[in-house]
Amino acid sequence: MSIRVAVAGASGYAGGELLRLLLAHPRVEIGALTAGGNVGSRLGEHHPGLTELADRELEETTVETLAGHDVVFLALPHGHSAELSDGLDGTVVIDCGADHRLEDPAAWQRWYGGPHPGSWPYGIPELPGKREELSGARRVAVPGCFPTAVSLAMAPAFSASLVEPEAVVVAATGTSGAGRALKPHLLSAEVMGSASVYGVGGAHRHTPEMIQNLTAVAGEPVRVSFTPVLAPMSRGILATCSSPLLSGVDPRGVREQYLTAYEKEPFVRLLPEGQWPQTSATIGANTLQLQVTVDVDAGRLVAVAAEDNLTKGTAGAAVQCMNLALGMPEETGLPRAGVAP
Amino acid sequence: MSIRVAVAGASGYAGGELLRLLLAHPRVEIGALTAGGNVGSRLGEHHPGLTELADRELEETTVETLAGHDVVFLALPHGHSAELSDGLDGTVVIDCGADHRLEDPAAWQRWYGGPHPGSWPYGIPELPGKREELSGARRVAVPGCFPTAVSLAMAPAFSASLVEPEAVVVAATGTSGAGRALKPHLLSAEVMGSASVYGVGGAHRHTPEMIQNLTAVAGEPVRVSFTPVLAPMSRGILATCSSPLLSGVDPRGVREQYLTAYEKEPFVRLLPEGQWPQTSATIGANTLQLQVTVDVDAGRLVAVAAEDNLTKGTAGAAVQCMNLALGMPEETGLPRAGVAP
Amino acid sequence: MSIRVAVAGASGYAGGELLRLLLAHPRVEIGALTAGGNVGSRLGEHHPGLTELADRELEETTVETLAGHDVVFLALPHGHSAELSDGLDGTVVIDCGADHRLEDPAAWQRWYGGPHPGSWPYGIPELPGKREELSGARRVAVPGCFPTAVSLAMAPAFSASLVEPEAVVVAATGTSGAGRALKPHLLSAEVMGSASVYGVGGAHRHTPEMIQNLTAVAGEPVRVSFTPVLAPMSRGILATCSSPLLSGVDPRGVREQYLTAYEKEPFVRLLPEGQWPQTSATIGANTLQLQVTVDVDAGRLVAVAAEDNLTKGTAGAAVQCMNLALGMPEETGLPRAGVAP
Amino acid sequence: MSIRVAVAGASGYAGGELLRLLLAHPRVEIGALTAGGNVGSRLGEHHPGLTELADRELEETTVETLAGHDVVFLALPHGHSAELSDGLDGTVVIDCGADHRLEDPAAWQRWYGGPHPGSWPYGIPELPGKREELSGARRVAVPGCFPTAVSLAMAPAFSASLVEPEAVVVAATGTSGAGRALKPHLLSAEVMGSASVYGVGGAHRHTPEMIQNLTAVAGEPVRVSFTPVLAPMSRGILATCSSPLLSGVDPRGVREQYLTAYEKEPFVRLLPEGQWPQTSATIGANTLQLQVTVDVDAGRLVAVAAEDNLTKGTAGAAVQCMNLALGMPEETGLPRAGVAP
Repeated sequence: MSIRVAVAGASGYAGGELLRLLLAHPRVEIGALTAGGNVGSRLGEHHPGLTELADRELEETTVETLAGHDVVFLALPHGHSAELSDGLDGTVVIDCGADHRLEDPAAWQRWYGGPHPGSWPYGIPELPGKREELSGARRVAVPGCFPTAVSLAMAPAFSASLVEPEAVVVAATGTSGAGRALKPHLLSAEVMGSASVYGVGGAHRHTPEMIQNLTAVAGEPVRVSFTPVLAPMSRGILATCSSPLLSGVDPRGVREQYLTAYEKEPFVRLLPEGQWPQTSATIGANTLQLQVTVDVDAGRLVAVAAEDNLTKGTAGAAVQCMNLALGMPEETGLPRAGVAP
Repeated sequence: MSIRVAVAGASGYAGGELLRLLLAHPRVEIGALTAGGNVGSRLGEHHPGLTELADRELEETTVETLAGHDVVFLALPHGHSAELSDGLDGTVVIDCGADHRLEDPAAWQRWYGGPHPGSWPYGIPELPGKREELSGARRVAVPGCFPTAVSLAMAPAFSASLVEPEAVVVAATGTSGAGRALKPHLLSAEVMGSASVYGVGGAHRHTPEMIQNLTAVAGEPVRVSFTPVLAPMSRGILATCSSPLLSGVDPRGVREQYLTAYEKEPFVRLLPEGQWPQTSATIGANTLQLQVTVDVDAGRLVAVAAEDNLTKGTAGAAVQCMNLALGMPEETGLPRAGVAP
Repeated sequence: MSIRVAVAGASGYAGGELLRLLLAHPRVEIGALTAGGNVGSRLGEHHPGLTELADRELEETTVETLAGHDVVFLALPHGHSAELSDGLDGTVVIDCGADHRLEDPAAWQRWYGGPHPGSWPYGIPELPGKREELSGARRVAVPGCFPTAVSLAMAPAFSASLVEPEAVVVAATGTSGAGRALKPHLLSAEVMGSASVYGVGGAHRHTPEMIQNLTAVAGEPVRVSFTPVLAPMSRGILATCSSPLLSGVDPRGVREQYLTAYEKEPFVRLLPEGQWPQTSATIGANTLQLQVTVDVDAGRLVAVAAEDNLTKGTAGAAVQCMNLALGMPEETGLPRAGVAP
Repeated sequence: MSIRVAVAGASGYAGGELLRLLLAHPRVEIGALTAGGNVGSRLGEHHPGLTELADRELEETTVETLAGHDVVFLALPHGHSAELSDGLDGTVVIDCGADHRLEDPAAWQRWYGGPHPGSWPYGIPELPGKREELSGARRVAVPGCFPTAVSLAMAPAFSASLVEPEAVVVAATGTSGAGRALKPHLLSAEVMGSASVYGVGGAHRHTPEMIQNLTAVAGEPVRVSFTPVLAPMSRGILATCSSPLLSGVDPRGVREQYLTAYEKEPFVRLLPEGQWPQTSATIGANTLQLQVTVDVDAGRLVAVAAEDNLTKGTAGAAVQCMNLALGMPEETGLPRAGVAP
């Protein structure tokens, strides 16, 4: 029997990627597509590549439109989830926005403001304990694209107590991560041929999410210095993460910890020694690629992760969580091979 | 029962795209992978995105290695097909190289030199008569990436006698079309931020293939002026084609001819009026997108086609032809939705 | 004695390129900088690369602000020139907008609407007769970026009666040509990795300007089919132009005509035989690079020109015209070497 | 009187950028151009943008060819400098290679192998004491492109004792930094749309140079963790650098230290508060742009620098040093405005 899904925010980049993946899912039937400003237009105007759905009309994002589906994906700015999900009692709601990611009300208040919308099962099944929470869940908070890369890159180091409780992260991202809003610094002539930074000095809202995840696996508070870099590419995150190696840790044992952590994970691949991640290998795939080493001179463990911010970083993770929530095999319908070159 | 396939030339770009598509094909089991200079290396060194096949070792390209499969894809430079296919009697051979595309021995001699290797059923099912030839075929010549775009863009105009027997084509291409050879003009620093031309003045080997296809649908010799443009992108062809409108042809009837030609084709999409093709909509998909209009002042019909040179332009067409050759539904395992943005 | 110049529209791309070139001009002193929506902001917010002018405040675009300079450059949307220039009697006004390019009032009415603002000396000194009109001129109409490339690519062919009076032009352009307006199709995620067309079928406003220029050199009406292609790069135009060779014309004489036309031009370079233009060679330079050949099979002369749309295509041409208008050596302060790779 | 200069390694990227800058230098006359594998070819084949020098023939790189010039620039792989410079007694030799950058013979032995070629005055005039050494020097070691960005980004923090003696650096670079060698990972189809890392874990040869520079300003050994990121752009370095803030340091005083360090430097620009560097602002310019802040939560000072790896990172610095060596004003002939967008 097919699963009937709706996508709210279908005209944006996350919405489009959700639809591309759902079209290839063997169990899914695509129901209502809703939008904000684009109500009444055809999906093909916004996503000309989604041939099969090009003539679908975008409806208003309301509880009424979304009700009656088995699963509703929310690909909306934060702040819309509570109101919509309250009215969708019988439905699995998978929120790609930030509303339900942070467990700490104080962190929510500081970074987003207003009352805490409450946290939902957190959609990185590969982190300790998360797969169990997501299995059969009725609500899922899809993580931010940067926290997925950084958490998976550093979790084994913290859970095996290889490093001191701090991390320095510099992560390059494609510009689709900023969404489809019309902002001057996202104009193509500004971006092409140029790299830039933003949110420097601890100002990016994904920072508390990284801290939450790494603190949970470390069992003690972890400090994170995070700098996002805007790179001239449409998709992809390349996160370079490092932490001081704890004195007494044998560098030769580090790889083993990472192998153990991920050897059974279908969507996390530790590369062979000597091979380093490149984002192109992950484009369009629900795959995170990873490598780790120790810089003996600098005394730091360095891990680098690559993923597609729209796929494993957002929409792929959302579908992976849907599979878990509905009790299907976790890999159902999800591509592992990237579109490269 | 699964279909066992081998890919010769697996370390190149066409080989990699074939494997990405074959991994998603519900009936295919991937057998031998062969290469030229990379024998003995792992596939993951060349295609880090092909996670599931990363540990596969590349074998030598010989008849012995390729024999015993149901289908063999050749993704090799021209000149290797005859020798290999002679020894593969019981096997469906699908050649992505140029060897068997040209029907005219004189054209072969002029453009490639040496004795004509003979022509095989030609792999654009959407051209008149081709689908019938490809159904059940044991040998298939996959077309060149440019001729696919240009032939599908202009065939309805010529078959409906809308234009004079000549065409001017300027087609931008991503650099994966040039293959993986180490050439100075393909270095990234040369290509990024720059557009250039090559093969100007009728020097590109895809020209006789366009002439052959358009002449066949026109029923009279068609002259083609073709200029390829190297654009700073990895994948994608955008072909701008125009021909003088025959006097007496009503411009308002042109769109109807194109609609009729392609309304039942799953992999050719005539866009809604006013919407023009962009290559991003076709990346990774076996889809060609198309638009047509008449420039009344200039007296020309102008058609523009977009495709992914590696997918509909090569590997996707090859799989589509395999489906036809083996009597499967033509769309089996082929994505229609592009990976965008 | 220094020349005092003002730039109206300084926060846009053409304005920024003008200022970059003027900073390097040995005779120029930069006076008022004006803008539309950005009045009161610092230039460095819009052009962080213009270090020396970063703290300059943008003033309102009025006759009062612009008066009292020796030269005023207008880098504004069309429609603003008449009102401003009427009040700038004693000043050389160089308009980078479209207002004064078209000589034919009917063409103006059709393509822009409203009353004809009158034509000014047209800023391609390399076209027959133009250098004389520009020398000592008080008003200059800087040409459109596409018409510069196309006119210089084809003028020798038409003036020497080598081809029939028609041309097919397909020109790839970087996205800075579209200016700095916030439009969805110019978002970086849309543009990178993708080629697209726009204004197909004779709809681009630069078409009548090409027709005007080529008709003038041909001495008879020339029909032009023009298709602009948006390429994933910030700067650069690569124009592929072709026309049917007149019967009886010896292809071996074509190159000679082009050599003769441009051998003394400092800013037009006919490349050595066998070398074809690439836009990177012209970035930031007031140079147009050119090659020509004959496609004997197709019966067409094919010429390809590369330029930087912001430099030789706009701001460089404007400075070149200022030099002529003020009686300085034409090359003063203008770079001929492109920034490549 | 003009200065006669020769460039060895003129067909590479650093050689080309040197020539572009030297063409605009008011005092320079360009003499011999030499190359390795490209002897006998014309410069225009390798640098089609260098119009004025296109017909120059490349000579063999020998002492005889280079002798008789006032200044010789070496843009060669390391290992060639000693032999050539030994024979150029009366000439100012400015080496863009690595041979004479490291002062410590043990560091040379570890990172490059073989006997130490000796250190020369080091070409970052903006570092304490260096300008004095470079003034009137007969030999100059041009720094590596990464060390320039990192040293200038962090020197004020170390010299003012704001941070602990360690730094974590992640720097994105355009691919021209890898030179013009034909390597598979530099092919355009591999690079475009993708970010990757290399030399991770302390393996990049620029690391000891950073350590040397920062240790000198800190007055104590500084540990550096350096990770280079290959970004899909031709030029530009964006270096994100951070160090733990020393306890007791007031974050509000940090900016003041940076202002003091660079307020008189023509080629280093500390951006206004709130504005962050982007590489496009520095393309083709001898300018480094810089911003600094403190991440209070993470307890780290974060500085980000942008430069053009070929200009301020190599050839521009070389010309700046030539100016100092010959007693000319340091800014002579050097552009400060970047070519953007």
